[in-house]
Amino acid sequence: MYNITKMKILKPAHDVFEAFVDPGKIGNFWFSSSSERWEQGKTITLRYDEFNAEGQIQIVEIEKDKKIVFNWGNTVTISLQETEPKTTIVEIIEEGFDENDPQLIEKLLDNKEGWAFMLTNLKAYLENGIRTLRTGLMK
Amino acid sequence: MYNITKMKILKPAHDVFEAFVDPGKIGNFWFSSSSERWEQGKTITLRYDEFNAEGQIQIVEIEKDKKIVFNWGNTVTISLQETEPKTTIVEIIEEGFDENDPQLIEKLLDNKEGWAFMLTNLKAYLENGIRTLRTGLMK
Repeated sequence: MYNITKMKILKPAHDVFEAFVDPGKIGNFWFSSSSERWEQGKTITLRYDEFNAEGQIQIVEIEKDKKIVFNWGNTVTISLQETEPKTTIVEIIEEGFDENDPQLIEKLLDNKEGWAFMLTNLKAYLENGIRTLRTGLMK
Repeated sequence: MYNITKMKILKPAHDVFEAFVDPGKIGNFWFSSSSERWEQGKTITLRYDEFNAEGQIQIVEIEKDKKIVFNWGNTVTISLQETEPKTTIVEIIEEGFDENDPQLIEKLLDNKEGWAFMLTNLKAYLENGIRTLRTGLMK
């Protein structure tokens, strides 16, 4: 089982790529901080100050301005496709959900909600400079 | 089976309520148009010009600035709770999914994605006046 979520962002693929890998940018639309620049082979610590939570991801693969693969238990593949000048389709696939998990549906829904919310935050940040949406989602 | 999605919006409940029921506002964050003001007992036509699609909803219940219930096959309940001055928790529950539907998971995920996306658009519209996110989600 996997989740796939796609968003059109009216910016070049390079800008979208940098939003993820540059630790100075992630706090505008997703986690509050990232320990260092995302590079292949690195382990990165991501923090959510609002929830006093942190976790680590392993960067499996980086293809500049095109692709980021990381592992946080499941495997996440972020693909960037510049379909026309200054327009990028961001596709995120998260794979590795256990089909026999009795909580499968809840976990898939929670995961889908997170990706849809983050990608909308990313669009608002890159297109409009809005940095204040990311703490809005409630459980 | 049901989906529940919640968003904190830094505006009074009245502003959030009006964003849904006023046909001059919905095009800023959700459907492109709504045929008339949402009132209890009415049938409203919603259009998505971008997809040349339209559908109808039946307004089952309206409680001013607090609650909207409508039916579009499933039943959707939008509840507004003003937790402090100028801060509103919007909770959306969609009920009526058939647990025996072989497409249940896909339908729930598609539905969850839609609500998370719309509520983030609503937050960006009400808090920041951003009207341009709503066509970003791709299939």
